[in-house]
Amino acid sequence: MNMAEALEASVVESVNAIYLLFSSYLVFVMQLGFAMLCAGSVRAKNAMNIMLTNVVDAVVGTVSYYLFGFAFAFGSGTNPFIGTSLFALEGIPNESYDYSYFLYEWAFAIAVAGITSGSIAERTQFGAYLVFSFLLTGFVYPVVAHWVWSPTGWLSPNYSGSSGLLFGAGAIDFAGSRVVHMVGGVAGLWGAIIEGPRVGRFDAFGKPVAMRGHNATLVVLGTFLLWFGWFGFNPGSFNKILVPYPDAPYQGNWTGVGRTAVTTALAGSTAGLVTLFGRRLLVGHWDALDVCNGLLGGFVAITSGCSVVEPWAALVCGFVSAWVLIGLNALALKLRFDDPLEAAQLHGGCGAWGLLFTGLFAKEELVVQVYNSGEVGLRRPFGLLMGGGWGLLGAQVVELLAILGWVSITMALLFLVLSKLRLLRISVDEELAGLDVSRHGGYAYADDNHPRFYGEYLRIQDEARS
Amino acid sequence: MNMAEALEASVVESVNAIYLLFSSYLVFVMQLGFAMLCAGSVRAKNAMNIMLTNVVDAVVGTVSYYLFGFAFAFGSGTNPFIGTSLFALEGIPNESYDYSYFLYEWAFAIAVAGITSGSIAERTQFGAYLVFSFLLTGFVYPVVAHWVWSPTGWLSPNYSGSSGLLFGAGAIDFAGSRVVHMVGGVAGLWGAIIEGPRVGRFDAFGKPVAMRGHNATLVVLGTFLLWFGWFGFNPGSFNKILVPYPDAPYQGNWTGVGRTAVTTALAGSTAGLVTLFGRRLLVGHWDALDVCNGLLGGFVAITSGCSVVEPWAALVCGFVSAWVLIGLNALALKLRFDDPLEAAQLHGGCGAWGLLFTGLFAKEELVVQVYNSGEVGLRRPFGLLMGGGWGLLGAQVVELLAILGWVSITMALLFLVLSKLRLLRISVDEELAGLDVSRHGGYAYADDNHPRFYGEYLRIQDEARS
Amino acid sequence: MNMAEALEASVVESVNAIYLLFSSYLVFVMQLGFAMLCAGSVRAKNAMNIMLTNVVDAVVGTVSYYLFGFAFAFGSGTNPFIGTSLFALEGIPNESYDYSYFLYEWAFAIAVAGITSGSIAERTQFGAYLVFSFLLTGFVYPVVAHWVWSPTGWLSPNYSGSSGLLFGAGAIDFAGSRVVHMVGGVAGLWGAIIEGPRVGRFDAFGKPVAMRGHNATLVVLGTFLLWFGWFGFNPGSFNKILVPYPDAPYQGNWTGVGRTAVTTALAGSTAGLVTLFGRRLLVGHWDALDVCNGLLGGFVAITSGCSVVEPWAALVCGFVSAWVLIGLNALALKLRFDDPLEAAQLHGGCGAWGLLFTGLFAKEELVVQVYNSGEVGLRRPFGLLMGGGWGLLGAQVVELLAILGWVSITMALLFLVLSKLRLLRISVDEELAGLDVSRHGGYAYADDNHPRFYGEYLRIQDEARS
Repeated sequence: MNMAEALEASVVESVNAIYLLFSSYLVFVMQLGFAMLCAGSVRAKNAMNIMLTNVVDAVVGTVSYYLFGFAFAFGSGTNPFIGTSLFALEGIPNESYDYSYFLYEWAFAIAVAGITSGSIAERTQFGAYLVFSFLLTGFVYPVVAHWVWSPTGWLSPNYSGSSGLLFGAGAIDFAGSRVVHMVGGVAGLWGAIIEGPRVGRFDAFGKPVAMRGHNATLVVLGTFLLWFGWFGFNPGSFNKILVPYPDAPYQGNWTGVGRTAVTTALAGSTAGLVTLFGRRLLVGHWDALDVCNGLLGGFVAITSGCSVVEPWAALVCGFVSAWVLIGLNALALKLRFDDPLEAAQLHGGCGAWGLLFTGLFAKEELVVQVYNSGEVGLRRPFGLLMGGGWGLLGAQVVELLAILGWVSITMALLFLVLSKLRLLRISVDEELAGLDVSRHGGYAYADDNHPRFYGEYLRIQDEARS
Repeated sequence: MNMAEALEASVVESVNAIYLLFSSYLVFVMQLGFAMLCAGSVRAKNAMNIMLTNVVDAVVGTVSYYLFGFAFAFGSGTNPFIGTSLFALEGIPNESYDYSYFLYEWAFAIAVAGITSGSIAERTQFGAYLVFSFLLTGFVYPVVAHWVWSPTGWLSPNYSGSSGLLFGAGAIDFAGSRVVHMVGGVAGLWGAIIEGPRVGRFDAFGKPVAMRGHNATLVVLGTFLLWFGWFGFNPGSFNKILVPYPDAPYQGNWTGVGRTAVTTALAGSTAGLVTLFGRRLLVGHWDALDVCNGLLGGFVAITSGCSVVEPWAALVCGFVSAWVLIGLNALALKLRFDDPLEAAQLHGGCGAWGLLFTGLFAKEELVVQVYNSGEVGLRRPFGLLMGGGWGLLGAQVVELLAILGWVSITMALLFLVLSKLRLLRISVDEELAGLDVSRHGGYAYADDNHPRFYGEYLRIQDEARS
Repeated sequence: MNMAEALEASVVESVNAIYLLFSSYLVFVMQLGFAMLCAGSVRAKNAMNIMLTNVVDAVVGTVSYYLFGFAFAFGSGTNPFIGTSLFALEGIPNESYDYSYFLYEWAFAIAVAGITSGSIAERTQFGAYLVFSFLLTGFVYPVVAHWVWSPTGWLSPNYSGSSGLLFGAGAIDFAGSRVVHMVGGVAGLWGAIIEGPRVGRFDAFGKPVAMRGHNATLVVLGTFLLWFGWFGFNPGSFNKILVPYPDAPYQGNWTGVGRTAVTTALAGSTAGLVTLFGRRLLVGHWDALDVCNGLLGGFVAITSGCSVVEPWAALVCGFVSAWVLIGLNALALKLRFDDPLEAAQLHGGCGAWGLLFTGLFAKEELVVQVYNSGEVGLRRPFGLLMGGGWGLLGAQVVELLAILGWVSITMALLFLVLSKLRLLRISVDEELAGLDVSRHGGYAYADDNHPRFYGEYLRIQDEARS
């Protein structure tokens, strides 16, 4: 390598590193977004608890993903099920992965448990939460990430093994509608089923009783922060921005990155808009919190195909996902299923719709650009409605079933064992008093404008004088 | 194009794309900043309403700006008044615009209505807000953007048509003191005039009655988020960072970008500082909320000339803008004009001062760097006080009048029609009860530490046993 | 310079500028983080006051750092104690510094006073705060920055003067465990000692009385924002990302930057985790606020050596810093030392541990990469436990003592003088009533759902009719 080549290599490496690093920081903001969204959506008496779970997801997740989570997900070798090297970042940096790649994947990993924390909010023992968070972030999620995102994963659209791509296509889950959101959502589904509804959520006749969150401002704050973070989550999943496409002058991953940000914003906004009017028709008022959840549902749905569909298709994606969420929420009430954050419906349901959507609307040119750097003349399966055949849709369905099965087996088992051992749910008395005062040393809010210390102060003065 | 040239082109494209994309994300944060600022500045009973307007600005704006707003603003052709192509991003990416450019302009577009929402807060029907937001973001604002920022716009300092630059100068509104802030502020002015003050804002003798916002923490949060976002708004308006200046080794747009961030911070800080001491003298206490508004006024004022003035001039800009805001606020009280967020005064008034400021203090060397990439030997009109003649100042005044006229005609008309149809203002009873409970299904805050569900729970238990 | 070289130079400049600018913006977010953390940690009656101090740090700091702070810190010349040029950015941009460098250093400077504001919260006159903030940001801090970070500073590991590096090593304080955090923490220590505890903090028998902050949500919000900002603070301190390391293909500052982000996250997370379990053992419940402070302590500690240690060492750093903070907090209670934000313990104590840590664990290869761009064959002192001898540790201890001495002399003197003049602490009556209502025109929060204006409205109506 001569000097000019070396400089070129440095430029490519550093431009891509900047892109990946700042994308990681944006994804990290989603952790804060979840914390605020969750805090605002629960009752004041449990605010401290749910914020602690979000902080703990980050600190536990950081250590466990460093020690073995990243290794399970991206460790090399030929195992299509789980990675077996790179523990504690041994051998990093290497030709494939630099620290910035770990950082980006880490930000994804700590987000997963945050999704689930919403489903089991307001009634879960903190000890159980620790076990669950550790296992989900450190093992269950990394395995799924390995399947879909590692070049040795059996579902990967970049699978490099001798058996070739699944159905010639591989499953396209670009930024993780399923790898992240459905994993979190399905885990939440089982948690919420096994724990049962919060005390008082359904009355003696099975009718739902509204349990409003204590602070809508926090919900809006969290929603916008999540939107902000999603600009790291979806466009950032290109990993490298400095990749030109041959035969398309002035186009490259930077074009794809921009388009992905656009499809993301469009899908979310459409879903939010449909929810706004849909809920106005259904319940009679303009509901800010429903719009926030609708928006997030649109983001979750587009996350799978964001890079391989045209902007107009994102409108379709968002439109349908709004109704998926509205429908699943209605169903949940009927089945007396209580998920305080609608996380199972939102991340699980809209994530599943995202799968179908990608299988239906992915455009061949874009699939080749995203997964083969726009290799000239290459053909591969794409969206069914775009004329791309059943290969991609088939792979997507297999991915759906595989993730559903894996997460259900592992997490339902965990929640069942914890439940049997009476380690999962808090007592009714604690639930009524709230977790903050019973487990965390006090409420999140203190009103202290009363001059109660004044009397004490005067007493101190008197004693000092006497 | 050989391989080395292709790589060079890729580098330039991707570096500029990174810069524009992350700047877009920062500008997007301003939407959150406005939401928090507005929420904190209104009374608790209307918090949900105003946050919904901010969320709706984003979701309505995204869809409408995608469908036609961007086309009106940047569509090609030779129409100096309005763009006529690029609807629904047809033809994007092309040689001039990639998706990242759309994204950056989109973030600006959704911010405009957020400014106005403050002026008409706490008394506007939500249906009217939807109509207004749709029209402002999708039509009124894009037309102004076309005039000033599209190369075919008649006010543009980059105007490429045969008639040449207006007064040989074109109007310099680098990041939109007027295109964005004055449009929002003037719209708010008419809205607030036509709606009239909130019930109880002025007593029977016309004396103002303080109506404190319900949460100063949110105001500070919003202010800092806006500051953060302004680093995308102003420096980001260079669009491209990888543009070297000939004859100035090691200088290029990256130097201009950095200087712009510095002038922005200096103008805002000076304005905040002057407000701090000014209000201390005038009202006798140190007022945090006034400092926040002063700071924002300084940002609004510098936004027009941020890239073409020296840092020392930014101190002048901020100093004057503080007094502009203090003066206009005093005048508003005298005229019994009620703008809950001071948005008309702040965005309209300080935006107008920014126009004068640029016409007075723009430096020739910097104008040539910013608008002609530092072309050697080129001369063009610049600030009057810097010896640059009346051309630039003249063009600025024309821009001011044109925007004032256009926004007044369209928006005052809209508000008047809505008012006549009794679709604009809510009833007195609703206003006293608050919008949240009357239109949005409940308050933003719920205090629920009471064990009211406990009795019900015992009843359920009893029933289950019997 | 031919055209190809010119383009190369432009690429290098603009890539590094993007990196430094966006890092600056992230560091700026820390100002917001401190504001929210501080606001949430004090009682509601003082929330407005502490937020104003944070806003004022930013606006006062911006103007003073522009006028002379930056000059004191980075002005050229051969003075090892203080810089003597670059006042009001005269001569910027030059070969060494562009505006983006100023911006990055500015974001650091305004953070320092924010740290101290926590220590003296809830009892300090605002006028005194203004004097203190101005002096700390404009003079005391820049001098320390000059010592350690300017190439003419006597402690600098890049010292270019004839006398050579201190102990052949120079002091390594990569991102400012001491330059920033210890300066703020030691200033806070003296402020809190001289002011004494808040009224009622210790009862007549000297026993501590808990004074809970009024809003834990703000504390969590602030903590996550600080974490986000720290990704600008630590990795950003490389200043340039496009610096290849010879003999390490595909590695360069981008590798170091990524590793620094990883060590930062790991140290903070480990400290948070240890605090979680440590406090559970000590006080019996899972405490969210302690975890937040533990996390921040870990960040402060790693800030000094973040770039020159391996990820595994960051676990050690975090583990110890958790116990340092727990221990110092226990000691503070014994000594009846009252620091509402634990800022002296956290920023001062963990910052001091960070010094030892770097002197013990710095790895030679990384020191050479960070401070000499990986110069082949170069050797320099490194961590004692890594076999690098006593040189580095010695320089670290000298830096510690020098900073401790300088800040103690200047700031203790200032606080003493203010105290003697009765300008430092507010009266007991004001303290009991709260600063907001006595000095800032009202509380931060207003509950206004009462229809008190309704009666007045009816009266107005009646008058209008009669």
